[in-house]
Order: sequence, then structure tokens, then C-alpha cells
Amino acid sequence: MTNVKETVGRKAADYVQSGMVVGLGTGSTAYWFVDEIGRRIKSGELTDIKGVPTSKQTEDQARKLGIPLVTLDEINQIDVLADGADETTTDFNGIKGGGGALLHEKIVAQNSRKIIWIVGENKVVDYLGKFPLPVEVIQFGSWKLFKNFDRAGMNPSFRKSGRDSLFITDSGNYIIDLHLDHIQNPQQLAFELKNMVGVVDHGLFLNYPDVILVGQEDGEILIHER
Amino acid sequence: MTNVKETVGRKAADYVQSGMVVGLGTGSTAYWFVDEIGRRIKSGELTDIKGVPTSKQTEDQARKLGIPLVTLDEINQIDVLADGADETTTDFNGIKGGGGALLHEKIVAQNSRKIIWIVGENKVVDYLGKFPLPVEVIQFGSWKLFKNFDRAGMNPSFRKSGRDSLFITDSGNYIIDLHLDHIQNPQQLAFELKNMVGVVDHGLFLNYPDVILVGQEDGEILIHER
Repeated sequence: MTNVKETVGRKAADYVQSGMVVGLGTGSTAYWFVDEIGRRIKSGELTDIKGVPTSKQTEDQARKLGIPLVTLDEINQIDVLADGADETTTDFNGIKGGGGALLHEKIVAQNSRKIIWIVGENKVVDYLGKFPLPVEVIQFGSWKLFKNFDRAGMNPSFRKSGRDSLFITDSGNYIIDLHLDHIQNPQQLAFELKNMVGVVDHGLFLNYPDVILVGQEDGEILIHER
Repeated sequence: MTNVKETVGRKAADYVQSGMVVGLGTGSTAYWFVDEIGRRIKSGELTDIKGVPTSKQTEDQARKLGIPLVTLDEINQIDVLADGADETTTDFNGIKGGGGALLHEKIVAQNSRKIIWIVGENKVVDYLGKFPLPVEVIQFGSWKLFKNFDRAGMNPSFRKSGRDSLFITDSGNYIIDLHLDHIQNPQQLAFELKNMVGVVDHGLFLNYPDVILVGQEDGEILIHER
């Protein structure tokens, strides 16, 4: 598995050219993309790169690798963003947020010209929902939202951090994971969730990626491109 | 002015009966409602009251007055919420958030059976927008949103706190005020704002109040009720 993640993560670096502003995803596959960007900078293959991290975790990794970092505020647009996904269909819809960085990932994605998703073939699905759908919610009143989700049969659970405390996102919010199994109408659900008071955003990324790189167990990489 | 605010604020307490869970609004008019609830508890007119504050500021005031407080999480529903508004039409649409508590006010309102707005007559308008519309946004990437608003001609300004620092809400977000002057289609705007990535919520409260108490300069109180 690690091998597939590494192969596809490093491969995504081929989309990056010198002089670009690069969005740096979060998670175990994006890790290898960030690692490869660092390697190519060190080797001189890539010059004048600016990185925009999608989480504190990725920021730390990039800093250690010596990737020059900028904030979203300092740049006009990101040229290429490479990031993982927890589930993706081949028609460019997915679920992200298993790592808890969905909001910042989505904000960075909104400001990216080209988005590349890097996944192992086990992440490619026919329909979304087997993976629990994360919903980022304001702490205040979140228990009320939880109960609404519960009443609606959406099998919510608060994301934990350790045994006794709730996970808190980089923006200071909670995450409620919805265990839906099969999302019949992702567009409708995305709309309903985002329009709830107290919901900041959710892990449905619909029509986001321009390219999906699928790392297969046999070492090949399958490319889905719009 | 203060007199009008006090008159209408105290009047709203008539909607509160012993045994109720009461939502406590924020701002210079709601201040007098909270004060009156405290007074009636002290005098024994009201017993078994539980208050749910909409901001840290109101929480502090209520605590000093000895109003028993609970959190949203601890109760089923709020029986009556009284809160101010920065602008309101007589068909129950308004702008709130001048005090910066719009998000928690909206979350509390979502969980309230009956909502009473208490305003001076100077707050009653034919159309919304003279008052700057607050939009609560995630700090991360907020400068990008600001520029989008600016490009769209919405005259944004970041809410300040003192001369050199930005105002931060009780949920840790920024507020961007939109100077729109005249909002042609509040429903459409509310929809567009809430669906932007990075926007948590906004100050348009459409179809929220059940009752609007309008304090007039002549000392009379006008009641708009559904």
C-alpha cells in the first residue's frame, strides 16, 4: 500500500514546473507528493517554487524539506494543487476530510487553476458514502446539529482526538462524521449540508479535480483527465 | 434613544413566563431585556427561568444579574428568544450582526420556538442594505474572499477591533462588512453568500422573527406580529 501511495504521490510532481505556485495537500498520499517536490527542489530540477500548505501538518513537513512557503493571501492563484481523496468516482466527485483538513483543502482548491487527485485504486468507487462523510461544524450548538443528523437517520459521530476529547480542526471547529453507506444524490446532500446554520463545510468535493491519478497494485498509474 | 431601547427591551419580557427557557440576545437593546429578566427573577415575578446567552458579553451580563444559565446542548428548545436587529422590514426580514454575534445569534434562533425582535423605530426600513451586511468568514483564505467581494462591487471592509487588529468572533472567525446600500434580492444574496467556501454565515435573517416590537420616540410600542 505505502508503495502505491508513494508511486502516485511522486508521479503528481510531473505536473509541476519551475516558477509555479503549488498547493500542497494533506494525508498519507499527498505526503509523497510534498516529499517529491522537496526532492526536486533540492536536486535543482525545480526552481522558484512557492508552496501553499493545506494544513499545519503539511506546513511542518514542507518547512523541513526547505520548500519556500507562502500564504493564500500573498498569491494570486495556485497553479497546481495535488491532494489525496478518501473516495473518488471516475466522474470527478469525491469525499475528502478523513485527515480533518477538508475546509482548508477546499479553500485552497477554490483558488487553484488545476487540481490533481492522487489515490490508490482502493479509493475509486462507483458511488460515494462508504467512507464516512465529514461535516465541519461550529462548536457552539453542535450537539443540536448532531441530534438533527441522528433524527434524519444519518448515523452521525463526533470525530474524536484520543479517547476523551473531540477533534478540533485548524479553524477551531468540530467534525461530525456521517455514516451514510450510499449517498444517492451527492449534489442535493452537499447543498443541504452547506445551507445548515452552524455547518461551515463538508467533505463532498463535487467536480473538483481536473486529473485523477490512480495508483494500482501492479505499479501502473491510471490517469482520468477531463 | 436609550430610553426607547430600554422601553422596548423591558417590554419584551412580557412574553416570558415562569418555567421558560429564554434566549438572551446581544446588543444595546437586548441589554435591557436581559436586565428586565434579571429584575423580574429578583422580584419573584419570574421563577424557574433558564437563560441561553447568544454571546460572551450577554453571558457576563446575565451572570452578574443572577440569571441561571444553560447551554444550547443542555436543553431541548428555547421557548422565547428576544434580540435586537440592526435593520428590519415589517415583513420579518432583517440584518443583524453589528455587534459581531450574528452566528451564535442565528444558531440560537434556529433552536427557538418564538423569536421577538426589539428595535427602535429608526431600525425599521423599507428595504435592507443601508446597514453594512456582516459576513462571518474563516480566517484562512479570507483575503481571497475579500477580493472577490471587492471585484463584485460589494464594497467590503474587514471589521476592525481597535486600530490595528481585526475583530474576531466568539467562534474565532473574521467579519467582512459589505456596504451594499440597497439589497435588491435578499433571498438570492443570502443563498449566494452561505454557499461560498469559507463563508460561515451572514447577517441576513430572513423570516426569522415572529414578533417585532418597535419602540417609538413618543414612548409607544408598535407590535408587528405574524
